Amino acid sequence: MRKWNKATPLALADLADAVGGQLEGDGTITITGAAPLQVAGPGDISFLANPKYASYLETTKAGAVVVAADAPSPPGAAIRHDNPYLAFAMILELLHPTPQLADRGVHVSAVISADAKVDPTSSVGPLCRIDAGASVGPGTALVSGVYVGAETEVGSDCLIYPNVTLMPGCIVGDRVIIHAGAVVGSDGFGFAPSPEGLHKVRQVGWVEIEEDVEIGANVTIDRGALGPTRIGAGTKIDNLVQIAHNVEIGRHTVIVSQVGISGSTKIGDGVRLGGQVGIVGHIEIGDGASVGAGSGVARSVPAGATHFGAPARDIKHAKREMAAITRLPDLLKRVRALEKKLADD
Amino acid sequence: MRKWNKATPLALADLADAVGGQLEGDGTITITGAAPLQVAGPGDISFLANPKYASYLETTKAGAVVVAADAPSPPGAAIRHDNPYLAFAMILELLHPTPQLADRGVHVSAVISADAKVDPTSSVGPLCRIDAGASVGPGTALVSGVYVGAETEVGSDCLIYPNVTLMPGCIVGDRVIIHAGAVVGSDGFGFAPSPEGLHKVRQVGWVEIEEDVEIGANVTIDRGALGPTRIGAGTKIDNLVQIAHNVEIGRHTVIVSQVGISGSTKIGDGVRLGGQVGIVGHIEIGDGASVGAGSGVARSVPAGATHFGAPARDIKHAKREMAAITRLPDLLKRVRALEKKLADD
Amino acid sequence: MRKWNKATPLALADLADAVGGQLEGDGTITITGAAPLQVAGPGDISFLANPKYASYLETTKAGAVVVAADAPSPPGAAIRHDNPYLAFAMILELLHPTPQLADRGVHVSAVISADAKVDPTSSVGPLCRIDAGASVGPGTALVSGVYVGAETEVGSDCLIYPNVTLMPGCIVGDRVIIHAGAVVGSDGFGFAPSPEGLHKVRQVGWVEIEEDVEIGANVTIDRGALGPTRIGAGTKIDNLVQIAHNVEIGRHTVIVSQVGISGSTKIGDGVRLGGQVGIVGHIEIGDGASVGAGSGVARSVPAGATHFGAPARDIKHAKREMAAITRLPDLLKRVRALEKKLADD
Repeated sequence: MRKWNKATPLALADLADAVGGQLEGDGTITITGAAPLQVAGPGDISFLANPKYASYLETTKAGAVVVAADAPSPPGAAIRHDNPYLAFAMILELLHPTPQLADRGVHVSAVISADAKVDPTSSVGPLCRIDAGASVGPGTALVSGVYVGAETEVGSDCLIYPNVTLMPGCIVGDRVIIHAGAVVGSDGFGFAPSPEGLHKVRQVGWVEIEEDVEIGANVTIDRGALGPTRIGAGTKIDNLVQIAHNVEIGRHTVIVSQVGISGSTKIGDGVRLGGQVGIVGHIEIGDGASVGAGSGVARSVPAGATHFGAPARDIKHAKREMAAITRLPDLLKRVRALEKKLADD
Repeated sequence: MRKWNKATPLALADLADAVGGQLEGDGTITITGAAPLQVAGPGDISFLANPKYASYLETTKAGAVVVAADAPSPPGAAIRHDNPYLAFAMILELLHPTPQLADRGVHVSAVISADAKVDPTSSVGPLCRIDAGASVGPGTALVSGVYVGAETEVGSDCLIYPNVTLMPGCIVGDRVIIHAGAVVGSDGFGFAPSPEGLHKVRQVGWVEIEEDVEIGANVTIDRGALGPTRIGAGTKIDNLVQIAHNVEIGRHTVIVSQVGISGSTKIGDGVRLGGQVGIVGHIEIGDGASVGAGSGVARSVPAGATHFGAPARDIKHAKREMAAITRLPDLLKRVRALEKKLADD
Repeated sequence: MRKWNKATPLALADLADAVGGQLEGDGTITITGAAPLQVAGPGDISFLANPKYASYLETTKAGAVVVAADAPSPPGAAIRHDNPYLAFAMILELLHPTPQLADRGVHVSAVISADAKVDPTSSVGPLCRIDAGASVGPGTALVSGVYVGAETEVGSDCLIYPNVTLMPGCIVGDRVIIHAGAVVGSDGFGFAPSPEGLHKVRQVGWVEIEEDVEIGANVTIDRGALGPTRIGAGTKIDNLVQIAHNVEIGRHTVIVSQVGISGSTKIGDGVRLGGQVGIVGHIEIGDGASVGAGSGVARSVPAGATHFGAPARDIKHAKREMAAITRLPDLLKRVRALEKKLADD
């Protein structure tokens, strides 16, 4: 275990208390780390949430395991909880308090415009740039090399990782996390054909990111052509996702890596988009809908539906068609046999 | 409407004059912003270019709408123009003059090699790095945190956004726009198998970007292995696109987000590549060809053709096959019925 | 030929000697550059490794060509070698010695924590940030704007290009090359559903990159949720690839651009993943396996197998099915004809 990743040792009973779990076994043992069931040792706490890993529970060497109320008992101690994964996540926060990535205040190498408003409780790390009229809220950390464009507003308790670019005139809500290299507010991709070639259509909108959003590394979110591109509260976006101009994304939606969403498309609340999904412009993905990894979505998806494939369609149809395709070479032979038989007749 | 995105108020008649359009209605009204038909208010100008939105024209509250010569009259005023989208784009430029993103001259925090040539009318923003022998032309702005490698030449009136990396020995033409986080001139992906593993093949070429090109956020363009990777004049590249070594792209071509083009492939003039298209190496996409979003192109595409699917093929064939696939589960049943009938006979 | 890309002139006989090749023709000629067969001139050396280009050998104007033992003789001189591409790669290194991208020592604009360990033979370029407890090994160059997080260890003779982010607590082995804009150690994408929405699961692992790895521009590699994400020695990763938390990649594996690998998946040694491949989580790709470009891998791939398609399957099956699909519209007609005939009977 590496020093950066080292946990603060805590008594198991204290962890059980802190997460409102029911202790089973010796609460006086000291937990010094967290690990998956199959590699955990006597000082580690582990968890079982995915039934796929249930077989590891019998043989784990973990000092303690967070399990559901009805799970079998592990060899060591247990914390029983209705939501073992959530309880384990809370335990991780106790074992590994967020490290402070930058000192309070403004590093001497940061370049801040005279009229930018930087809260004194925020941290502006080395080599950051905050342009005219921008603001950074209380408790927010810009780690290093972050660019905050003119008049962009960053809320409170945000964590903005190195080399992030927040273009001018955007809004970032409270408790937003933006990972390294992400770009918020780049120009949308709009051109008017003209006799001299493609004439750039100035993109005069902005990006609005609501509270509790997480944005992955090297994600790109374009500003609106007119008006905002919007990401709803609690939505989580994985690395290398592309979000085009005037896209609107609802709340508590999950967008896995390398998804691309074209202009003006609306994504509802609680939607799940698998990795590498592509979505055309000007359509709607309804609340609670899911789209399987790698799908190409050309038509709106109703609320609650699960679509899959390229082109994406109801997953039941898609799977039936995929299964049928595997029988297609054989089908060709069968039809040939029928033709021959009929010709012979 | 946010301050950064606020328009300069202008009289409608002046806008009509400036774009060479024909005014219809009261030219004395003041236009204070631009908005889509369905959300525009009395101070806004809007436009109708896509027939899909024609129904909004009757009910729009926009003060004025830019429309084609033969379009119905909107409730408010109108500017009639042969190319309404282009006229609207020009109006946006009047309402929203480009904000100056960096002051003229070199910011004190920029690090410029003694023998770099930086035109005095250019803007080199905070925390930029310009290495030995590089040059930056008149009127060009490097916004912040931009790296310009040794001997790289950046032309005039370019706009290079934050955290862009221009590797050494590359050429960027006039009026090129490069969005945040893009990388130009990274090494191509070339390795010679050897008994000790993969031996890196040094990439000794460069990248040449002609005038009026736009490159999206977090795009990567590799330098040639030998000789150039070339992007032709007026070509527009969206976010997160990958262009491999020795690719040659023609003029006025449009490449949508997340496309990947493999090494030594040639893309013609006026080509359109939809989002997430992948193209193998060493093939040609002819002038004026189109490839639909999500396609995987394994063979050359003739000039003017439209290809689609994975593997990409003529779009008519592709659509016919896709339609047939939806009937495949039923076809299996029909063949089984035929077999049964013949067996019974 | 541009100055940055200009070669050091060398005698052909010296090049043949240096790579252990057999000289054929006049060894006294001076080689001043390298170029592909079809554009090379009398001062250039070229090579023939791909039989696809064999026809260019007869007509090339290259002063010399590196060829296999049994290849025909080119019009000019030749160097014969068992591995012509490897020999050519070695010749490129002689003609184009690696340029020094940053001076030895720490640039005055770099911001280094007091307790970071920076080897005096390394180069820390302008505007780099090295945080507390981090270390940079001998001979390593951080070109410009590089972020090295707290307690991250960078080995010897590495080349870290501009605007790279190495998050805290990671390990980078010797002779690793990381291209511009790449992010190593961003948080994995892990959330526990809770009544209040998605609760972030703190990612307390790290990334370990073994020696001789190359990582492309704007690649993202997430840190482990618990324990490491690992990239094995000699593995080469192209631009814009996404590697999720706790992925383990073996040695000498090749991953082409825009591939996405989901969490906890294991990739073996000597694997080849084509461009834009997507791989689900928690599966294994065996040693020596290949996956064709654009494939979507939903199940483990056995060692040595070649899989293709979406969903990926054995390439022979996949190709047979693809061929069958092109005959599907015709098959529909044939079945209709059979039905008609049987109905008529």
